[in-house]
Amino acid sequence: MDVRIINPFLAAAIHVLKTMAEIDAKPGKPFLKKDDIAVGDVSAIIGITGEAKGSMALIFDEPCIMEIASNLMGEVFTTMNNEIRDAVGELTNMICGDARRRLAEEGFVLQAGIPTIVGGKSHTISHVADGPRLAVPFETSQGTFMVEVAFGR
Amino acid sequence: MDVRIINPFLAAAIHVLKTMAEIDAKPGKPFLKKDDIAVGDVSAIIGITGEAKGSMALIFDEPCIMEIASNLMGEVFTTMNNEIRDAVGELTNMICGDARRRLAEEGFVLQAGIPTIVGGKSHTISHVADGPRLAVPFETSQGTFMVEVAFGR
Repeated sequence: MDVRIINPFLAAAIHVLKTMAEIDAKPGKPFLKKDDIAVGDVSAIIGITGEAKGSMALIFDEPCIMEIASNLMGEVFTTMNNEIRDAVGELTNMICGDARRRLAEEGFVLQAGIPTIVGGKSHTISHVADGPRLAVPFETSQGTFMVEVAFGR
Repeated sequence: MDVRIINPFLAAAIHVLKTMAEIDAKPGKPFLKKDDIAVGDVSAIIGITGEAKGSMALIFDEPCIMEIASNLMGEVFTTMNNEIRDAVGELTNMICGDARRRLAEEGFVLQAGIPTIVGGKSHTISHVADGPRLAVPFETSQGTFMVEVAFGR
């Protein structure tokens, strides 16, 4: 599989955070994941099927998700709650949907499941993928998040 | 959506754990989840698409996954490692695949993504689903796990 498949997911993350939450997310250098494991405070995972099967994960540190949720909903959040979890799920649907639209324009059609939200300080996220596992770190003004896309063969 | 859709997932969990790891998993009472959140030490999440879109999560406490991994691989495990994470992913593929086969026999065809593994003591798992969210607790001789299936509309 062409590792450029990750680009639409990155473009989608930047676009959705900018338009929905007025957040400028600065991407770092993409890297191929091997056994390394992402660590975050809030994550969202959504399954992907169609011309490739895999998963997308968004992995946020707490300052980053508080900034995003506060901007998105127009009130200041400082602790995790169900409203933030729902917002993370909606963001995930939007980012995955936007990425799938971009891929469909290139003739690559994917379907998506529904988001599952993970909470818990410093939890780990890893993938059981035979195919490429790609990760891109992002910085916002308050924190960091990671976009990971993993595919089977 | 008919809540009986969860039954093939339960039957698959019991069958796969029995045949692969010689574990007798005793199901408790299924319940409809609302805002409550599952707590576990190791979880696996796999996305579902097709005639319904959703996700399946398996949420283990540490004693339970150590028992399962030890039986499955024929050596005693006492701490989390990549080998156990891979085993959790394989179990998830097997349980989801077995459930999908059972559902397909009834004419209900689903596709599945690839598993994502979550680690971290007492992390939480929740779903952003418009449709039914169903959970069933299981007991093994050493610990407990939960099977959750959530669907969008």
